[in-house]
Amino acid sequence: MSLSEASVSPAAHPRVVIIGAGFGGLEAAKALRHVPVDVTVIDRHNYHCFQPLLYQVATATLSPSDIAWPIRGILRNQRNVTVLMAEVTGVNTEKRLVHAGPVAVPYDYLVLATGATHSYFGHDEWADAAPGLKQIEDATRIRRRILLAFEKAELTQDPTEHERLLTFVIVGGGPTGVEMAGAIAEVACQTLPSEFRNVDLRQSRILLLEAGPRLLAAFPEDLSAYAQRELERLGVEVRTGTAVTRCDSHGVETSSGRIEAGTIIWAAGVVASPAARWLDAERDKAGRIKVASDLTIPGRPEIFAIGDTAAPVTADGRPVPGIAPAAKQMGGYVASVITARVSGHTVPGPFRYRHQGDLATIGRKVAVVKLKHVQLRGFVGWVFWGVAHIYFLIGIRNRFVVAFNWLWNYFTFQRGARLITETGPAAQEQAAPQSQDAPERVG
Amino acid sequence: MSLSEASVSPAAHPRVVIIGAGFGGLEAAKALRHVPVDVTVIDRHNYHCFQPLLYQVATATLSPSDIAWPIRGILRNQRNVTVLMAEVTGVNTEKRLVHAGPVAVPYDYLVLATGATHSYFGHDEWADAAPGLKQIEDATRIRRRILLAFEKAELTQDPTEHERLLTFVIVGGGPTGVEMAGAIAEVACQTLPSEFRNVDLRQSRILLLEAGPRLLAAFPEDLSAYAQRELERLGVEVRTGTAVTRCDSHGVETSSGRIEAGTIIWAAGVVASPAARWLDAERDKAGRIKVASDLTIPGRPEIFAIGDTAAPVTADGRPVPGIAPAAKQMGGYVASVITARVSGHTVPGPFRYRHQGDLATIGRKVAVVKLKHVQLRGFVGWVFWGVAHIYFLIGIRNRFVVAFNWLWNYFTFQRGARLITETGPAAQEQAAPQSQDAPERVG
Repeated sequence: MSLSEASVSPAAHPRVVIIGAGFGGLEAAKALRHVPVDVTVIDRHNYHCFQPLLYQVATATLSPSDIAWPIRGILRNQRNVTVLMAEVTGVNTEKRLVHAGPVAVPYDYLVLATGATHSYFGHDEWADAAPGLKQIEDATRIRRRILLAFEKAELTQDPTEHERLLTFVIVGGGPTGVEMAGAIAEVACQTLPSEFRNVDLRQSRILLLEAGPRLLAAFPEDLSAYAQRELERLGVEVRTGTAVTRCDSHGVETSSGRIEAGTIIWAAGVVASPAARWLDAERDKAGRIKVASDLTIPGRPEIFAIGDTAAPVTADGRPVPGIAPAAKQMGGYVASVITARVSGHTVPGPFRYRHQGDLATIGRKVAVVKLKHVQLRGFVGWVFWGVAHIYFLIGIRNRFVVAFNWLWNYFTFQRGARLITETGPAAQEQAAPQSQDAPERVG
Repeated sequence: MSLSEASVSPAAHPRVVIIGAGFGGLEAAKALRHVPVDVTVIDRHNYHCFQPLLYQVATATLSPSDIAWPIRGILRNQRNVTVLMAEVTGVNTEKRLVHAGPVAVPYDYLVLATGATHSYFGHDEWADAAPGLKQIEDATRIRRRILLAFEKAELTQDPTEHERLLTFVIVGGGPTGVEMAGAIAEVACQTLPSEFRNVDLRQSRILLLEAGPRLLAAFPEDLSAYAQRELERLGVEVRTGTAVTRCDSHGVETSSGRIEAGTIIWAAGVVASPAARWLDAERDKAGRIKVASDLTIPGRPEIFAIGDTAAPVTADGRPVPGIAPAAKQMGGYVASVITARVSGHTVPGPFRYRHQGDLATIGRKVAVVKLKHVQLRGFVGWVFWGVAHIYFLIGIRNRFVVAFNWLWNYFTFQRGARLITETGPAAQEQAAPQSQDAPERVG
């Protein structure tokens, strides 16, 4: 199907347009493999990013290409899929057209899977001082900041500036915050000290700030306490009950005083991408579309929202967490609904989320794992964590490379991806996370 | 040795400052391992880049971290070396100080090893339209342009623009130009076509322009002719005797007419970095310092220039080529001169360059090799080329990863590093090669 044909003539098969090739969108596309539909996947990047391992790019263990895989490559053999790299600028729900770059793509079914970005709770001006971790560019930007802080400390003779450069603040004690804090502590205290002559990196301070009463709120209390002890053993200062009231280029202000810091990392909150605005659909306070029990948008049975774009109502009234397995389950469910409707079969019942568990890793060989009937911690937890992540990585090649890098890192304490690229000050700014509102269009 | 100590008190050992951690600078630093000197290596990047494989990053086979290695990591165990990541802004030859970022580093011996950048023969305004390939940032920028050209072609319905987007011009028929042309032809005609639905990438035109009468002028004529035949077999149009008279954002003008092109790559000439200007030393028309037979600067026996920064006079009057082995030989030679002077031994005779051979690869399994007594071509040449490059890669980890990626690429035709990152228009500009004159300082 060429684009121009699609625009003028009726399609042979119902047309499914999926916006976003994250976990949810990709799962939906794959699940439509043997269904008589024409699928178009539109993403503003040319790759699918395995977000759960982004923190390892940010801390120089993995390279971007280890955790990202071209969407075209993933879907190459699925002949009913066309991939377009383009920025979606709007949806015409009357004419059923998605406007993306220079083209208008018609749909019979539309799946919104555009994901989430960081939320600064109304303080977007903190974004530059405290970058979050949602995209490849975020990760390379944070990596550059962390590594440059060490380099600048090696050159600086002013003791106050020295101390500031070696202070790292991570805001938010969820899995991302815990994983970043542990990894930075290892880099500063174990990987790098022997390479610097003028500065002792073991003097670095890594602070993990959490507004709530404990880390890893989704886990049982004893695992939270264990995670805190393990972080402290690595040298991280954990401060629970500490809310951040302001971030600037020199540090953070908190409910218990100011901390001067050279590097601030935001791991505190997310907000849905602005897909809801395209449709003028009702959304919750995190910007997610309030979908019906079949994940359609009320009044628009041909439009679905999944993953972090959607706030589905579940049977027991509990929210569905914003994690990869949830997005994948929604993607698979939506594909089954579309399949049923296209083929005239009975449409499946309401979407039911099956929670498989929670995982978080702390440094190089400890993790906490909470499954339905099992809790794991320590090295056993870490092995489970590693196997699970390797297993879910897309592309057999990436599995090999990631496994190799982890083993290398484990046995040698080395990190293989420690490049500071694009060091220009303006380049640092350019690498800032672009909102879904205003990135470049390809076309 | 802390920086402040160095600035105020006499050093226990003679101080050697090496500017630039390319092949020459790094070899000099390593060769001083067991010599009673204090070595400071200053580079504006935190990594050593293996330039001969940059084209594989630019064509998405390897990742940046596969061919670049932190300088600190390489020199970690050499206790007499301090590494500083800083931009050198000048040299005070009277006080014997190197000004780098916020510090002034004193020296007793100074080694200039700052390398080369692209030369547009007086037309620096072509740089944006026709990026060259000298640094990691250049490679990721070219990779982005090549991959975006295919993505845009998939979205474009205008046949003229379509044709322009799928036209790739490589200017310069030396090893880099030959390697780039072969790799782009493979990506366009073998790796990617099955992933696009609206466009047939096999219609891509890859033109290799060379002003001289044949490709690979450093090789024997029969190997040049063989390389041209092999490139043509891959689908490359080779045009010798074709000089480029202008580059702009839509194509190139040549001595035989204009070519509309979406991507232009400059592989035609290099010019030395401006180290000569710091010293007001005499230089040749490529900006290289005219050094004495011991690689010192005339009148400055304590200052050496090596690698692409230097134009040494050889016994037979032939120029030393600007390749990695030449830079390494000069680095080792300078270290031996410094060692002799420091320890009061007899200073070695003049620098003698030993040419070991020339290599160039054409696509995925063909190369041409010219050694002193041996010529290789075809698959045998390619195996030799691969083994030689793997062998010289710094860091055992990189050897493994590169070998793995090559084998993967060889057996699957896949390319593992096909990420289009930093797609913003301003980001593209920021990634432009920064001249040694005006990049950011770290301190």
